[in-house]
Amino acid sequence: MQELDTTSIVPLYKQLKDLILKEIEEGRLKPNQKIPTELELSERYQISRMTVRKSLAQLVDEGILAKKQGKGTFVQEPKMTEDLSSPNSFTNLCKRNGKVPGGRTLKFILEEATDRDMKELKLEPGEQVIRVERLRLADNMPVMLENLYFPGHLKNILVENLDDTSLYQILHDKYGLVTGNSVMEFEISEANSYEAALMEIRAGSPLLLVREIVYDQYGQPLHRTKSLLRGDKFKYISPRMNVIKN
Amino acid sequence: MQELDTTSIVPLYKQLKDLILKEIEEGRLKPNQKIPTELELSERYQISRMTVRKSLAQLVDEGILAKKQGKGTFVQEPKMTEDLSSPNSFTNLCKRNGKVPGGRTLKFILEEATDRDMKELKLEPGEQVIRVERLRLADNMPVMLENLYFPGHLKNILVENLDDTSLYQILHDKYGLVTGNSVMEFEISEANSYEAALMEIRAGSPLLLVREIVYDQYGQPLHRTKSLLRGDKFKYISPRMNVIKN
Repeated sequence: MQELDTTSIVPLYKQLKDLILKEIEEGRLKPNQKIPTELELSERYQISRMTVRKSLAQLVDEGILAKKQGKGTFVQEPKMTEDLSSPNSFTNLCKRNGKVPGGRTLKFILEEATDRDMKELKLEPGEQVIRVERLRLADNMPVMLENLYFPGHLKNILVENLDDTSLYQILHDKYGLVTGNSVMEFEISEANSYEAALMEIRAGSPLLLVREIVYDQYGQPLHRTKSLLRGDKFKYISPRMNVIKN
Repeated sequence: MQELDTTSIVPLYKQLKDLILKEIEEGRLKPNQKIPTELELSERYQISRMTVRKSLAQLVDEGILAKKQGKGTFVQEPKMTEDLSSPNSFTNLCKRNGKVPGGRTLKFILEEATDRDMKELKLEPGEQVIRVERLRLADNMPVMLENLYFPGHLKNILVENLDDTSLYQILHDKYGLVTGNSVMEFEISEANSYEAALMEIRAGSPLLLVREIVYDQYGQPLHRTKSLLRGDKFKYISPRMNVIKN
């Protein structure tokens, strides 16, 4: 067991912090593993609890550790990061994060457009949508439940085997359509029992709910997407140009 | 009590959906109010439970209703929407959403830069940051806990009474600095006991954790922000230009 150096000019809280980081980097502390309590750390290293608290607070702030209410402090599994400035696909997302992508198409149906479909895809009452529901896996763990909605007149995509790489290819090849701008929405949702069962989590667990309307090169809606992502597995990064704060 | 019209060409699920929407619009069903169960609705309107289920599913999907695990289905209070394409300030956000903004500065301190500060604000070890912690209220309800971190050399902002409208004005007037680009991160976090007490929620409640690094017109970091927002109160909208999907 390494000791802290009380003669060093490096503050003790910083030494403890670096020591914990090293334990994590070198794999002695593993993702989701519980770390010793404040009291245990203060006794083990003969430092005040306030010093321990400062080290842990910074590691929590930096997302290295996570406090779980009433359970203790755990090594945070790094979240998969979706960078909205680069080309988006689940396959790319997994690759960039060192995970093996997988998936299962659960539903692939032509159904009546809902009010939201009509509004967001500019459809008339009675028109249909093609809905594709897919469960996405990273390293064999279900992490995302995705529903894509296309205007019913794009029926030709139905005849193809829809996977992530071919979808936009089909839209291009059969319809000459490519993606233009989009609008995204981020919020928190609670898993219902259906979603929880599919994602192997407890009903009521917080999910990141991401909705997107994707427009084609002419500014017409190409599809909408509703994605539910495990809150403990993902984060989104979004660059913004020329922000105005006032 | 209104009846459904079985002779209409409008499907029954759609009639029930419109009826519930009307009850909400006209204020007979209020935000956070529990609606009758599937069984009660099916008996009251003499329709099948499957029809009721379809109506409710669409209203949940549209964010009008929310299912709470084991508790029932409730009228969702509309979430405040931050639109990242328009000038950002909490004051604007509240005004756009019909709420009265309020706030309290909790901390205003000069402290040692953490590793994250050094990395994100490009500071050297031993440099300081100015940290401003503010609690933000909408209609007197605490909804957001915000921490802003400025490089220590921008000390002159410390001498001013920092409120939302004056901050960027001070940076402009005293330093000639204006906002350029930024990078945002979105993820889910759990409220710790400190955050929960301030925001008057239960510890462990899901919060939207939004981090931002704001750069100045020369591409240098101007400040970083860590905001925790009540997950049941907020959503973010972000437009994207020329998205690439593959």
